[in-house]
Amino acid sequence: MAEKETGRVEAFSDGVFAIAITLLILEIKVPKLPHDSSPSELAQALLDLWPSFLAFLLSFFAILIMWINHHGLFNLVRRVNHSFLYANGFLLLLVSFVPFPTSVLAEYLDGKAMNAAAAFYCGTFIFISIGYNLVWQCMVNGDLLKPEVSTAHVRKIARAYRIGMVVYVLSTVVAFTNGYLGLGMNLSLWILWSILGYKPSSAS
Amino acid sequence: MAEKETGRVEAFSDGVFAIAITLLILEIKVPKLPHDSSPSELAQALLDLWPSFLAFLLSFFAILIMWINHHGLFNLVRRVNHSFLYANGFLLLLVSFVPFPTSVLAEYLDGKAMNAAAAFYCGTFIFISIGYNLVWQCMVNGDLLKPEVSTAHVRKIARAYRIGMVVYVLSTVVAFTNGYLGLGMNLSLWILWSILGYKPSSAS
Amino acid sequence: MAEKETGRVEAFSDGVFAIAITLLILEIKVPKLPHDSSPSELAQALLDLWPSFLAFLLSFFAILIMWINHHGLFNLVRRVNHSFLYANGFLLLLVSFVPFPTSVLAEYLDGKAMNAAAAFYCGTFIFISIGYNLVWQCMVNGDLLKPEVSTAHVRKIARAYRIGMVVYVLSTVVAFTNGYLGLGMNLSLWILWSILGYKPSSAS
Amino acid sequence: MAEKETGRVEAFSDGVFAIAITLLILEIKVPKLPHDSSPSELAQALLDLWPSFLAFLLSFFAILIMWINHHGLFNLVRRVNHSFLYANGFLLLLVSFVPFPTSVLAEYLDGKAMNAAAAFYCGTFIFISIGYNLVWQCMVNGDLLKPEVSTAHVRKIARAYRIGMVVYVLSTVVAFTNGYLGLGMNLSLWILWSILGYKPSSAS
Repeated sequence: MAEKETGRVEAFSDGVFAIAITLLILEIKVPKLPHDSSPSELAQALLDLWPSFLAFLLSFFAILIMWINHHGLFNLVRRVNHSFLYANGFLLLLVSFVPFPTSVLAEYLDGKAMNAAAAFYCGTFIFISIGYNLVWQCMVNGDLLKPEVSTAHVRKIARAYRIGMVVYVLSTVVAFTNGYLGLGMNLSLWILWSILGYKPSSAS
Repeated sequence: MAEKETGRVEAFSDGVFAIAITLLILEIKVPKLPHDSSPSELAQALLDLWPSFLAFLLSFFAILIMWINHHGLFNLVRRVNHSFLYANGFLLLLVSFVPFPTSVLAEYLDGKAMNAAAAFYCGTFIFISIGYNLVWQCMVNGDLLKPEVSTAHVRKIARAYRIGMVVYVLSTVVAFTNGYLGLGMNLSLWILWSILGYKPSSAS
Repeated sequence: MAEKETGRVEAFSDGVFAIAITLLILEIKVPKLPHDSSPSELAQALLDLWPSFLAFLLSFFAILIMWINHHGLFNLVRRVNHSFLYANGFLLLLVSFVPFPTSVLAEYLDGKAMNAAAAFYCGTFIFISIGYNLVWQCMVNGDLLKPEVSTAHVRKIARAYRIGMVVYVLSTVVAFTNGYLGLGMNLSLWILWSILGYKPSSAS
Repeated sequence: MAEKETGRVEAFSDGVFAIAITLLILEIKVPKLPHDSSPSELAQALLDLWPSFLAFLLSFFAILIMWINHHGLFNLVRRVNHSFLYANGFLLLLVSFVPFPTSVLAEYLDGKAMNAAAAFYCGTFIFISIGYNLVWQCMVNGDLLKPEVSTAHVRKIARAYRIGMVVYVLSTVVAFTNGYLGLGMNLSLWILWSILGYKPSSAS
């Protein structure tokens, strides 16, 4: 029973992650040129879309990392409860929100308002970080963890989440004066996490 | 056999819920400013999108509650039949419809036509309530419930659905003269349900 | 092994059905009125969207029936093979195509070009009917049916598909001169199927 | 444990494939004619959409083949590891990207810039080919294959991927001078693969 329950929440969450990550492509708009434009004009117009491509890559990578992370959390869970469902729902709300700051970033990355767009983008991840922390608190406090999860592992995850939160707050502050640096800080964190963070069989 | 059947209907329904909840973000449109706009102009334009953010939050919360509710119903079911499939299909039609009144609300929340938008939004939930009642009738009358579901539990759900219906009718009527009050009534009901309504292991 | 294989094809198909049915809502566009429009002007504008609502309802019902039908077919299958995968893929192509003729219908239902839009819509279902026939041929000829499926049942399905094909061809021809009659013929068939056609445990 | 892990990665991937393939339809835009246009004007406008229909068919077929291929790969895997997750994520990024070059192709297929659009489209498949090669390298080098997979089978797959890569590079180069020929080369490869390539029970 508990396992089926957990499975359904996991499947629903995976659905939201998969849709959010695939909707990102809708943000890249086909360039509208006159019908008699030359091939090189189209090539140039496609190259001019680099802010859209960059924002797409960045957010795809971010959601992929978040999915793998979410995946890792569910491996530690033996059952779900009431508050966990809502904390997870709040997290999914933020995941499904990501395509919007991505579009804002794509639109303004090469303009004067770039810093505001980058700060908005980075700021979204502060909320996502809060979402993961809430889910995690529900897991620990609600006694939802599998008995074989070691205290060392619990401490390691809690620390990783604290670090994430701090980096996101810093990157948002930095982005207000230097958008690229703010985005670079987030990207560095994600690369670090993708190298260090996840072991598929971390529950065992 | 019956279990596999139920599982496939459940998975299809979860798919529709997950997609509907994730499509909500497409309603929030990137503000189009001149290319040389300043960061503070972009920040202001993002703040001016508050009706879109509000409508997004409201509908995300509504669909999440509906999914958890749907989830709870399927935990009580031991098999599906012909009429259940169509009643559930009608309910999914309404779930997939939610992004439209959400967009209408977002567009007109800060304008003069706000009451009509709010009434349209609240009115959608009258139909959703009818949908849940139909599914529930099919479950009870078609002998689809698991034997361990108690009469007390059946009566409790039936009462919750009657209350939901009444609140939605009232909120729609109220919204015609005061849109915010109508929306507030719906939100109050959802918060109440999220606190009281759902116990993951309610079937046992 | 064979069962897992069948399960994955089934899950992928369900995904396409669920997404296609939920994308239909994107066809209904929020009316764009001046910011100071009155509530009754918005109410009127929403009522003027009746062609969009009608097309949405019609296609939702059509895809739901198709999903239930698809579901019924997979209950008869014990394994999948090469040609079945491609026949099913061709069917999914057509399912994912449905939102487009739906949008065309919604756009032109109340205009002079209505008959062409209705014929295009009805014509789509000729192809869908061909798709189901191909899948069915692959099932029968490829020896994919479960041994317990009776010859009477096989004959019944083959007949239903032949009737479907004939109705769609007729409705398309009729729609060229009377769009509403053509659409009504399709709708009548779907209602008939939803009443007669499907028994959840038809394999046994 | 390992099996559940593999299953969840497979389900997530299937979700992305199913969404990407169904989003393709959003690329076909309803023709906007004056309200009093005649049925034959609408019929003509629909026929004029042939580049959109062609691009839709081509990409649907391409993603379907890729899904079947992906499906075949996962049948060979007994567990997943860290690098496999990221290689698979990179592949999914490219799959979710396909709707964009498809839209570009649809927009410019009947114009002067056609060769650039076709080269961009074909070029996307060079990256997809790299993605499959990365996933495959992770499988072979990370010892993720089921023990029953024969060396002959491994060699056959590696060869197929090398051929794919070569064809995509050639078709991209050719497309710069003759877009149709480039697209035709890709299509020929896909037809060949769909005839020869996949045996559902290839792992045994």
